[in-house]
Amino acid sequence: MSAGPTLLDVTTMRSRLDRLRRAADAAGVTAVIVSPGSDLRYLVGVGGSSFERLTALVVPTDASATPVFVSPALEYAGLGHVPLGDLGVEVRTWVDGEDPYARALGGAPAGLVAVSDMTPALHLLRLRDAGATEQALAGPILRELRMRKDPAELEQLRLAGEAIDRVHARVGEWLRPGRTEAEVGADIAAAIVEEGHAAADFVIVGSGPNGASPHHELSGRVIEAGDVVVVDIGGPLPSGYNSDSTRTYAVGSPREADVESVYAALRRAQQAAVDAVRPGVTCQDVDRAARAVLASAGLAEHFIHRTGHGIGLDVHEEPYIVEGNDLPLEAGMTFSIEPGVYLSGRWGARIEDIVAVTDDGVARLNNRPHELVVL
Amino acid sequence: MSAGPTLLDVTTMRSRLDRLRRAADAAGVTAVIVSPGSDLRYLVGVGGSSFERLTALVVPTDASATPVFVSPALEYAGLGHVPLGDLGVEVRTWVDGEDPYARALGGAPAGLVAVSDMTPALHLLRLRDAGATEQALAGPILRELRMRKDPAELEQLRLAGEAIDRVHARVGEWLRPGRTEAEVGADIAAAIVEEGHAAADFVIVGSGPNGASPHHELSGRVIEAGDVVVVDIGGPLPSGYNSDSTRTYAVGSPREADVESVYAALRRAQQAAVDAVRPGVTCQDVDRAARAVLASAGLAEHFIHRTGHGIGLDVHEEPYIVEGNDLPLEAGMTFSIEPGVYLSGRWGARIEDIVAVTDDGVARLNNRPHELVVL
Repeated sequence: MSAGPTLLDVTTMRSRLDRLRRAADAAGVTAVIVSPGSDLRYLVGVGGSSFERLTALVVPTDASATPVFVSPALEYAGLGHVPLGDLGVEVRTWVDGEDPYARALGGAPAGLVAVSDMTPALHLLRLRDAGATEQALAGPILRELRMRKDPAELEQLRLAGEAIDRVHARVGEWLRPGRTEAEVGADIAAAIVEEGHAAADFVIVGSGPNGASPHHELSGRVIEAGDVVVVDIGGPLPSGYNSDSTRTYAVGSPREADVESVYAALRRAQQAAVDAVRPGVTCQDVDRAARAVLASAGLAEHFIHRTGHGIGLDVHEEPYIVEGNDLPLEAGMTFSIEPGVYLSGRWGARIEDIVAVTDDGVARLNNRPHELVVL
Repeated sequence: MSAGPTLLDVTTMRSRLDRLRRAADAAGVTAVIVSPGSDLRYLVGVGGSSFERLTALVVPTDASATPVFVSPALEYAGLGHVPLGDLGVEVRTWVDGEDPYARALGGAPAGLVAVSDMTPALHLLRLRDAGATEQALAGPILRELRMRKDPAELEQLRLAGEAIDRVHARVGEWLRPGRTEAEVGADIAAAIVEEGHAAADFVIVGSGPNGASPHHELSGRVIEAGDVVVVDIGGPLPSGYNSDSTRTYAVGSPREADVESVYAALRRAQQAAVDAVRPGVTCQDVDRAARAVLASAGLAEHFIHRTGHGIGLDVHEEPYIVEGNDLPLEAGMTFSIEPGVYLSGRWGARIEDIVAVTDDGVARLNNRPHELVVL
């Protein structure tokens, strides 16, 4: 895993560590253990590597205690540009044969320890055996920090949205009868990188009946005239901030008779959910706005997933736009609005934009037209 | 994450599940919970996806109890080709808003539950809160199954070795003065895919002083005449089995005066470790064989990592060839032999082959020449 560049200066990193300590204190934990991945990248600008050797940032809640960064000695060189010293973080490297778990916990007080959500069991249970016996998820703490994006983060997400919009604008170059989904997907993946992403993280080309499976990715199915095709694509910019956008295409005039009416309802549902977004509205209210439109069109049972997910350094993060989530929206939150209709064995459609909550409403970060794109 | 093809027929899957149950019984656990990733792929041929929604195979040790496969409903379509019914596995899908943890544990008896090593804390701690309070790592159990490769697995690793050897044979096309490591790396990554891999999982081009950092990946450094360059590359075949091979190149005559003598010692060390491999020899004996040669050349302190790692569906897996590992080698084990010398601030070198333990010795799965390759 490459470290990648960072948007962060020392002042921002210090501020995030301070906010982490305050949130951890409020949650009643004595330390937060942050594993490689987006949580670590959010705090110190690099994600680290997630192999079997322990890498972790241990942040005691007590501001007078020193945070510790534990790293395999042979991977530490890749972190040399992170200003851990300026941040008051002590570095403890270890070599094969040494016990990194005791080293990680050496500076951490006893009590309830919060561990970042993506920490693998391999490390979590060894930390437990090394003395961190009371463990909780750090997700709820880190989510509080990460859920509201600052201006630099919003700018990255806006750029990511523009980059993936440019790819959708080119889909007509590749999506043609006689080609397989996999062939089309390879062209799209190359374009995702050409348009400025660091990688093509996911490429879904769900043609004909495959479009009725929301997480279908690619297959050898040959695209036929008359197919409706769901194209859901995205990836990270070099900064780590992600794009994610879906448009639905028709290869010539659609074969199925109900495409026009069903797609029109889907488009109204997506618009209703976007229109519902503003500070103070809950996540489930946004979900309900989309669902109500599809229900009134008799399509409730064919919308089989939540309306959206937060996005930032992770493609899927808080807040989730789902029934049961009564979190009120706040300015700076960013998430997908992506209702879909899945007609088993026949066809499917989805429309997905990333949106940002503004002080008084919503801004779309994807701006391709929302009509069914007939190629 | 794409499911990818599988080598597995139902008979092999059933045999692996039976072996899992027996190993779990011997370890004193009542059930094994297998999360998405290589462990799941080993058992049922698909790795699943590792997003925030729980997917897990729960295998009770008691052979009269039914294994359960828990999957988000919207991702289950991607698993439709897995013969779970033929394997006697009950499928329990769930939709957003339902509690998958109780569902996963519904069929599992109380007692010590083993959880696969890569299970994220997000799921591990929620399984704990849902009743699986006694948790152990499943790694030691699954390792027993996965460590000795069967003939079909060995064939895949042999093909992977040939594929990455073909890439090394072409490195001279791209590694030239005036190009950056990143430019060379992009060409190598494309060739890794061209030569039959499903993806370029890692590409290390460590030129000049960057070669002295074992896990350096790529940078904007411009390669100069006289540089020594470490190229460590690999990725999975479509079957999921991985390649991993390192060769060290010189761009013209090496600048540093000690390259010839140090590299000669490294080559002897790598050969000594390969020569040490046969059934009954311990992992640490192989590590010591390489280390002794480098120590006698006065280079002990510059070999700063273990000699190797197992390889299969994971790039890094058991057995680890490291001091302290007294596991005796057995026929069918596959691992890297990759001693290196790292001269801080100046240059580095590494030679890495994958080897397989045979009934009476060793077979190299990488067969490019071991000399310093002067381009």
